[in-house]
Amino acid sequence: MRTLLNIPNEFDILFMQGGGIAENAIVPLNLGRGGTLDFVISGSWSEKSLREAQRYGPTHVAASSQAQGFDHLPPAADWQLSAHPSYVHLCTNETIHGVECHTLPDLKALGCDAPLVIDFSSHVLSRPVDWSRVGLAYGGAQKNIGPAGLTLVVVRKDLLGHALPICPSAFNYQTVAQNNSMFNTPPTYSIYMAGLIFDWIARQREGDLHGVAALEARNQAKATLLYDCIDRSSLYHNRVQEPSRSRMNVPFFLRDESLNTAFLSGAQARGLLQLKGHKSVGGMRASIYNAMPLAGVQALVDYMQDFEKTQA
Amino acid sequence: MRTLLNIPNEFDILFMQGGGIAENAIVPLNLGRGGTLDFVISGSWSEKSLREAQRYGPTHVAASSQAQGFDHLPPAADWQLSAHPSYVHLCTNETIHGVECHTLPDLKALGCDAPLVIDFSSHVLSRPVDWSRVGLAYGGAQKNIGPAGLTLVVVRKDLLGHALPICPSAFNYQTVAQNNSMFNTPPTYSIYMAGLIFDWIARQREGDLHGVAALEARNQAKATLLYDCIDRSSLYHNRVQEPSRSRMNVPFFLRDESLNTAFLSGAQARGLLQLKGHKSVGGMRASIYNAMPLAGVQALVDYMQDFEKTQA
Repeated sequence: MRTLLNIPNEFDILFMQGGGIAENAIVPLNLGRGGTLDFVISGSWSEKSLREAQRYGPTHVAASSQAQGFDHLPPAADWQLSAHPSYVHLCTNETIHGVECHTLPDLKALGCDAPLVIDFSSHVLSRPVDWSRVGLAYGGAQKNIGPAGLTLVVVRKDLLGHALPICPSAFNYQTVAQNNSMFNTPPTYSIYMAGLIFDWIARQREGDLHGVAALEARNQAKATLLYDCIDRSSLYHNRVQEPSRSRMNVPFFLRDESLNTAFLSGAQARGLLQLKGHKSVGGMRASIYNAMPLAGVQALVDYMQDFEKTQA
Repeated sequence: MRTLLNIPNEFDILFMQGGGIAENAIVPLNLGRGGTLDFVISGSWSEKSLREAQRYGPTHVAASSQAQGFDHLPPAADWQLSAHPSYVHLCTNETIHGVECHTLPDLKALGCDAPLVIDFSSHVLSRPVDWSRVGLAYGGAQKNIGPAGLTLVVVRKDLLGHALPICPSAFNYQTVAQNNSMFNTPPTYSIYMAGLIFDWIARQREGDLHGVAALEARNQAKATLLYDCIDRSSLYHNRVQEPSRSRMNVPFFLRDESLNTAFLSGAQARGLLQLKGHKSVGGMRASIYNAMPLAGVQALVDYMQDFEKTQA
């Protein structure tokens, strides 16, 4: 894991229990220190993180794209950070709205010395991470790591040791770090499976690239194939502004939504499953995580083009 | 699960994430209500529960066998309960000290209307539970349920809805209950494996008994075989008073502790593993959970008798 993501030694790698959503509370319990918690709101998951953090300290919304229907990631230059936040929280891939952060903000350049906390649940291990800009990263296992029931936390060691007194011991990052993620009985099978996935990632090759860099190249190719299909179509459209489009989760809509049911049943007939969009946004969503090969995206694109022709 | 343990409909069955130890904090976050939390201290695990609960409200030790080296469960008649506790906590099987509660206390008969909270992690599904005496029961999966990473919580529905405001949503029992244990992505594989174990338990037979009752009969036979061997020996001894002896975890000591290493290596040579006692108590410990057949205990007893003969 450390090698795969080039995680520097000044970071601890923790395997926490529970899904990533629990971390929305566990992060402020550990890093909040009673100070202001700054949030960038770019979709459903950052909204949920904000609501959960409000239990543990004053919060401040530094930027939000809610008024624009979460069609982009607010650019860092526009963030209105508070004076001395305990940390700044950013969800770097919004699974439901299909918004991804492609360049991590440099908080220091913005005049802010607080650590950046990123929720990278739904694109972890799909691309490299610029650790020089991160204080803490957390991600549920269930997308690109392994079976559900495990959360990866990568935290700069100097941020440990400041948990609120109400933080449960099993969720105190310092306690977990000191016990090598075995303060309590760890989810052994999930960790074992994650190890197999890490081995698989290490073996991946694309030209001269290997490991996560190879996966990134493949993920770029997959996303380009699908977005090109959508953008060239007169039936399908994606509402996310191009610089913020996610490589992992591609939500799209049929301009004639009365065709949704026909589209989904035709897809199912070809073995293309789980394409219905999240109930909160509707439409369609193609989740093309690391485990999805280029051929799978090609099969979807072929179907989308065939379906569009039948509607002409 | 409901059928296996005859859980009445006034209880919700929750699958929580994380090991049982996290529940030491999650229970007071949900049931504490800021009132006094009464604890019976009968070994390491109830001590840990007490320390964790102290973060969330005033605590009171109603009884403790610490001065006697945790050699018995303090009898309910001797408990000094506080006036109006939010709940009374009891660890019904102390894994490390080998102390088990064989008859749940009737708090009402003791003049206390608070719910009884039991940590049944290490003997869950090894015997029936008298639910008329229980408000909440919690148990980590890793002993008799399935792979680590899952905690079973059985809670009377009328106790839900009173969580402290600082309780994380993912650990709020009411939220988890309302979402059928899927508020966040659940540990799917652990739940699947637990289901297979439940099926296995349902198929067990001992004479006319089936399911958990059959396992209880088998566990009684296993424990009797081992304790009889210990009690008849002049080399081995068990320090727990007979009425409190655990059927699941049998700690024992060699009267001549200089033989410990020879005992363990001889055991290993026969494929008898994991017999070294917990570092906090020393000696030996045989954990004879549901998965251990009578033949396994017989093999241990045969070895113990052979080893004793070689020392004569």
